[in-house]
Amino acid sequence: MHSMNRQWKLKRYPDGMPTPDDWEMVESAIPRPGREEILVKALYLDISPYMRGKINPTRAYYGSGVEPGDTMIGGAIGEVMESNSDRIRAGQLVVSDFNFGWQDYSVFDPDSVRIVNPDLAPVETWLDALGVNGVTAYLGLFEAASMQPGDTVVVSAAAGSVGQITGQLARIAGGCPVAVTSSAEKLEWCREIGFDRGVDYQNTDNLAEALKIACPGGIDVYFDNTAGAILDAVLQNLAVGARITLCGTTSLASKFGQPDIGDRYWRQIITARARLQGFLVLDYPQHRYNEAQQRLGQWVREGRIQHRFDVVDGFDKAPEALIRVLSSKNLGKQLVAL
Amino acid sequence: MHSMNRQWKLKRYPDGMPTPDDWEMVESAIPRPGREEILVKALYLDISPYMRGKINPTRAYYGSGVEPGDTMIGGAIGEVMESNSDRIRAGQLVVSDFNFGWQDYSVFDPDSVRIVNPDLAPVETWLDALGVNGVTAYLGLFEAASMQPGDTVVVSAAAGSVGQITGQLARIAGGCPVAVTSSAEKLEWCREIGFDRGVDYQNTDNLAEALKIACPGGIDVYFDNTAGAILDAVLQNLAVGARITLCGTTSLASKFGQPDIGDRYWRQIITARARLQGFLVLDYPQHRYNEAQQRLGQWVREGRIQHRFDVVDGFDKAPEALIRVLSSKNLGKQLVAL
Repeated sequence: MHSMNRQWKLKRYPDGMPTPDDWEMVESAIPRPGREEILVKALYLDISPYMRGKINPTRAYYGSGVEPGDTMIGGAIGEVMESNSDRIRAGQLVVSDFNFGWQDYSVFDPDSVRIVNPDLAPVETWLDALGVNGVTAYLGLFEAASMQPGDTVVVSAAAGSVGQITGQLARIAGGCPVAVTSSAEKLEWCREIGFDRGVDYQNTDNLAEALKIACPGGIDVYFDNTAGAILDAVLQNLAVGARITLCGTTSLASKFGQPDIGDRYWRQIITARARLQGFLVLDYPQHRYNEAQQRLGQWVREGRIQHRFDVVDGFDKAPEALIRVLSSKNLGKQLVAL
Repeated sequence: MHSMNRQWKLKRYPDGMPTPDDWEMVESAIPRPGREEILVKALYLDISPYMRGKINPTRAYYGSGVEPGDTMIGGAIGEVMESNSDRIRAGQLVVSDFNFGWQDYSVFDPDSVRIVNPDLAPVETWLDALGVNGVTAYLGLFEAASMQPGDTVVVSAAAGSVGQITGQLARIAGGCPVAVTSSAEKLEWCREIGFDRGVDYQNTDNLAEALKIACPGGIDVYFDNTAGAILDAVLQNLAVGARITLCGTTSLASKFGQPDIGDRYWRQIITARARLQGFLVLDYPQHRYNEAQQRLGQWVREGRIQHRFDVVDGFDKAPEALIRVLSSKNLGKQLVAL
C-alpha cells in the first residue's frame, strides 16, 4: 500500500489520438474522509472510449470536461479503507461509475457509490455488464433502437465492452446479432458468445459488400460504437424501418478538432425510413438503470451473458490503456489493475 | 379541347440535373373509360421534387420507377369528362395524387381518386394543403419530429409546397418557425405567413453562423426538404433532444448517381441526443391521412393556412416546371396549368 495518492493529471488537450505525454503522474497526500464519508482504494480502473470526449477543449460536449491540471475522469471499483458512515464498513467493495478518477484513493459520500456483492458475480463484472456498459447496451438496444425479435442486429466494436453485451442481449431478445470487429481473434470470441456471424473489417476489401452478404435481408438494427467507415457501410445496407443507435465514435478518436469528411447517405436513410437516435446513457432515469441492472444481473447469474476483460497491469499504464481502447486493440472490457 | 392525348414520356434517365431533352412529347388516342370507370381531363399537373427519385435507374428507390418509354409519373387535378360509374358524374373535379401522369387525359376507377369540393377551397388547394403536401407537412412535423409547443422549428425549402405549410403548422402548434430559403422574395413570403424569422442562404456567407443567430437556444426540430449544406449547418446548431425529419433531398438533384461527399456531424448528433427520422408519407395508413386532411381543411377554411402557387402555363412546359423545382426557382407550390 502506497503512503501517497498517485494521480494522473491531464497535461494538455491531445491533438487527435492521445499520447501518454498528454498526462503526467503526480503524487499527493491520501485524502481524508470527512463526516459520513468513506475512503476508497482502487482495485480496477475502468477505461472507456467516452474519455476521449472529456479531454477536448470544445465545451459543447455533454457534461463537464477535464481541463489541463485536473485529475483524469473515470470510474473504478475499489475497497473501502475507512468509513465514517454507518451504512458501509471498511472492507466492502464499491463502484463509482464515473467519479473515481485516475488515482489510488478517492473519498465519497456512500450514496454516490454502488455496493458490490462479490458473491453474485466476479468483481470486474460490476464495471461491465453490471455497470454503465451493461445499461448502455440494454437501453441503447431495447429503448433507443426498439429492437424486436427477428431483427438482424449489427454491432460495431463487437468485442468491446458495450459491444459484447449488446450482441448477447440481441440473442436473448430473439434477434440475429452480427459482429463487426477488427481481428480474427475478436471475431472468434464474438461467435463464442452467440453472434451469428461477423465481419473482420481489417481483413475485408469492401465492407459494404461484406455486410450485404452477412445480412441478405438488410440491417434492421445497428448499434454504432464507432461511426466512420463501419457506419458508412451499414447505411448502404439498411432494411426498411431500420433503427440506429449512435452510441460511440471511436473511429474518430484521432480526428477530434478536425471535421470528419466522407460519403453521406441521406437519401438511403429516407428510402429506408430509418430512425437514427443519438444516445447517451446518462439521460435515463434511475428506475431504468434499476430495471436494466436487475435483468442483466439475472442473465449474468444464469450464464447467459459472458465477459472478457482486457486487463492492463499497473497504475502507470492508465494512459496506454486508454490509447489501446481508442485504437481498437482491446478484446473485451478494458481495465487497469492496481 | 384536344382530340388527342398529349403525353410526356421519359426518353432517358437524366444525368444529374434533368434537362427538357430527357423527355419527349408524343400524342396518342384519348383513352376510353371501361365499365365503372371515368375519363378525366387534367386542369393542373402537380410538379414535385420526389419526381427526381422516380427517374433514376437505381431500383432501390421506394415504389416503382419510371423507365425510358414510360409516361412520366405525377398527380393532377382534373374534370370528369365521362363517367360509367353511378358514384361520380361528368363535370365533377377529382384529384389523383400520384397516378395521373403527365398527360391530358387519364382513366380511373372512381375509388382511386379524391372528389374535390371547389366551394370549400380553391381547386389548386387540393394539390397542396389538402393534398399529399399537406399530409407530408402534418405527419412529418407532428408524428416523425414529435413537434412540441415552444419548439424552434427550422424548415428548409420553406417557400416551397411542403415548406410553406410546415411553417404555418408549426405556428398553429405553438412553435417558432424559422425559414431557410433562397431569395429575399421567398423570405418575405415566409414572414407574411407566420415564420418568425429566416435565413436567405443564397445571400449568407456562413449559414451555420446565421442559424446560430436565428436560433440562439438551438434548433429543436428541423424539417429537412433539401439535405446538403442546409442540413450540415443545422447539425452544428442542434438543441439537446433535437428531432429531424428527413423528408427531401432537393439539393442533391444534380448528384443522382454520384456519392454525396462532405462534412459529417455524427458526434454532434450524439451530444445533442438527436433523433433523425427518414420520412415517407406513403407509409402512413389511411386514417392518418383522414385525420390530417380534416384538420388541414379546417385551418384552410379559417384562413390559418395560406398558399402560394407557382403556376407555369402550358402542357409543353412540364419538364421546365420540374427543373424549376429542382433548382429552387419556385415560390410556392409548383403547378402546370393546362
